[in-house]
Amino acid sequence: MNAKKQPVILNGLPVAESLKEPLFSSIEKLASRGIVPCLATILVGDDPSSATYVKMKGNACRRLGIDSKRITLDTSTSTAALIAVIEQLNNDPSIHGILLQHPVPPHIDERAAFEAISIDKDVDGVTMMGFAQNAFGAAPYPSCTPAAILAILDYYQLKVEGKHAVVIGRSPILGKPVSLMLLNRNATVTICHSKTENLSDIVRSGDIVVAAVGRAKFVKAGWIKPGAVILDAGYNAGNVGDVDYAECEPIAGAITPVPSGVGPVTIAALLKHTVEAAERLSMAR
Amino acid sequence: MNAKKQPVILNGLPVAESLKEPLFSSIEKLASRGIVPCLATILVGDDPSSATYVKMKGNACRRLGIDSKRITLDTSTSTAALIAVIEQLNNDPSIHGILLQHPVPPHIDERAAFEAISIDKDVDGVTMMGFAQNAFGAAPYPSCTPAAILAILDYYQLKVEGKHAVVIGRSPILGKPVSLMLLNRNATVTICHSKTENLSDIVRSGDIVVAAVGRAKFVKAGWIKPGAVILDAGYNAGNVGDVDYAECEPIAGAITPVPSGVGPVTIAALLKHTVEAAERLSMAR
Repeated sequence: MNAKKQPVILNGLPVAESLKEPLFSSIEKLASRGIVPCLATILVGDDPSSATYVKMKGNACRRLGIDSKRITLDTSTSTAALIAVIEQLNNDPSIHGILLQHPVPPHIDERAAFEAISIDKDVDGVTMMGFAQNAFGAAPYPSCTPAAILAILDYYQLKVEGKHAVVIGRSPILGKPVSLMLLNRNATVTICHSKTENLSDIVRSGDIVVAAVGRAKFVKAGWIKPGAVILDAGYNAGNVGDVDYAECEPIAGAITPVPSGVGPVTIAALLKHTVEAAERLSMAR
Repeated sequence: MNAKKQPVILNGLPVAESLKEPLFSSIEKLASRGIVPCLATILVGDDPSSATYVKMKGNACRRLGIDSKRITLDTSTSTAALIAVIEQLNNDPSIHGILLQHPVPPHIDERAAFEAISIDKDVDGVTMMGFAQNAFGAAPYPSCTPAAILAILDYYQLKVEGKHAVVIGRSPILGKPVSLMLLNRNATVTICHSKTENLSDIVRSGDIVVAAVGRAKFVKAGWIKPGAVILDAGYNAGNVGDVDYAECEPIAGAITPVPSGVGPVTIAALLKHTVEAAERLSMAR
C-alpha cells in the first residue's frame, strides 16, 4: 500500500443503497402475497440517544415500505414484563423482526431478554444461537453493525483474506461477532479491549482496524499503520466516532467517516434482515 | 520474563489430578442417592486413533468410578441413524454426558450430529449453544481441550490478563473457543490459521502461544518470544505435538510436553463435566 495516495473515504451511503436496492422487488413480491414486512422495535426507558436510534430505524422502514411497530416501555419495566412483550411479538404472525434497543435499564437482565427473542425473528443477531450461527459462518441474520462492516469492505473491494485485522472492543453484539466474521473471511484477527497492554503498538500492526469502543476520538493518528483500512463503528456525543478522523484520515489507506459511514449501512442491514425474515417466515407457514 | 531462567515444564498430570480430586466426594454423594455418572461415547467408523481416544476416555471413567457406555457404529452409518442414536441417549436418564468422537466419516453431517446432543449432556461443548455459552463466559461445560488449557494456566499461576495470546488454529471445538476463553480472561487474543501471512512474526509477538493446528512439530524455535508460555494442544503420529518441543523448550518460559501435557487434562475436564452433568441432571429431576 502507498501511504502517499489519497485515502479512500468509505462513504456508507452508496453501500446502504446497494443493500436496499434489491429489497424493493422482494417487498413487491411479498405485497403480491398480502405480506408487508414488519419490524418491531422495543425501547425501554427514556435514554434520548436510544430514542433517536429507534426513531431512525422506524423512519428507514417507512421510506422503504416496511412496517414498523414501535413499542415504548417505562424505565421501571421488569425483566419478566419485557420478556412477556417479546413473547407476544414472537407469536404475532404480522411481526417478522424484533429489535430490542440496547442498552436496557440496569435492573433488567438484558441477556435474558435477548434470549427471549425467537431465533427466526432475531434480525440483529443478539441471541446466543444467532451469535453461534455467525461464529460458524452460517447466520441468516448476523448482528447488523458487524454485517455493515463486512458490507463496506465488500462494496469497496477491500481484501480481507490474509490481512491482519485488529478489532478494538469485545462486546457480544459488535466486537466479538465482527472478529469472528473477519476470521471466517480468512483475516488474522486480534481482539483488543480495556485490559490490552501496548494497545497503540497492536493497532499499528493492523492492516484493517475496527474501532468499537464507544469512546470519542479514542484512536489516534500515531496508532495507525500508513495505508491501513479503518472502520469506525463508534457514534458518540457530538456526532464523532471512536477514531480521531481528522488526525487519522491522512494516514489511512481507506476510512469510514462519522456520520455517513458504518451507521447508515447498519440500518440497511437491519432492513435487509427484516425483509428476509418476512420471506422465510411466510414460506415456512 | 527472564529467558535465561530454566523453563517451567507444564506437566499436565498434577493438573489432571487437581481436577479429578474433588470428584471423588461428588461421586460418593451421587452414589448415596443411587446415581452413577455415566458418559456415553460414540465412535463412528474404524479410525485407529479415534478408537484409542475413546478407549482412553472409557478407561479414565472406570478408574474414577464413572460408568461409560461405549457405542461403536459402522463407517457406513447415516447422519439420520447417528442422530437417532444420540436422541436415544438424550432420552436415557442413566446417561449424563454424550461424547461424539471427532472426526466422523465425511459422508456424515457432523454439525447436525453435534447439534442433536442435548445441551444438558453436551459435556464437550460441541453444540452451537454450548459454544455461545462459552463465548459469553457462562458455559457449564466448555469444550474440554480449551478448558484444559485454561486449567493448566491456572494451576501453574500463569498470568493471562493483559497478556498477548496467539492461538494457531480456528476449529469450532478448539481454536475458536479457547480464543474466546482467553479473551474473557482479559488476554489480548490473536487468532491465526492457514491463511495467516507472516505467521512466525505474529507468533513471536505472543506472550502465550496455543498451538492447535494438528501438524507435527509445526511451531519452530525461531517463532517463539523468549520467555513465552507455550501450550501445545496437538497430538500427532509418533506421539509428537504441534510444537517442536526440543527446539522450543530452551526458549520458552513455560511449555507443555507431549505426551503428559494438555492431553490428560482434557480427559480430566471430560470426567469433571460428566460428574457435574450427573449432579445437575439429578437435581433437575
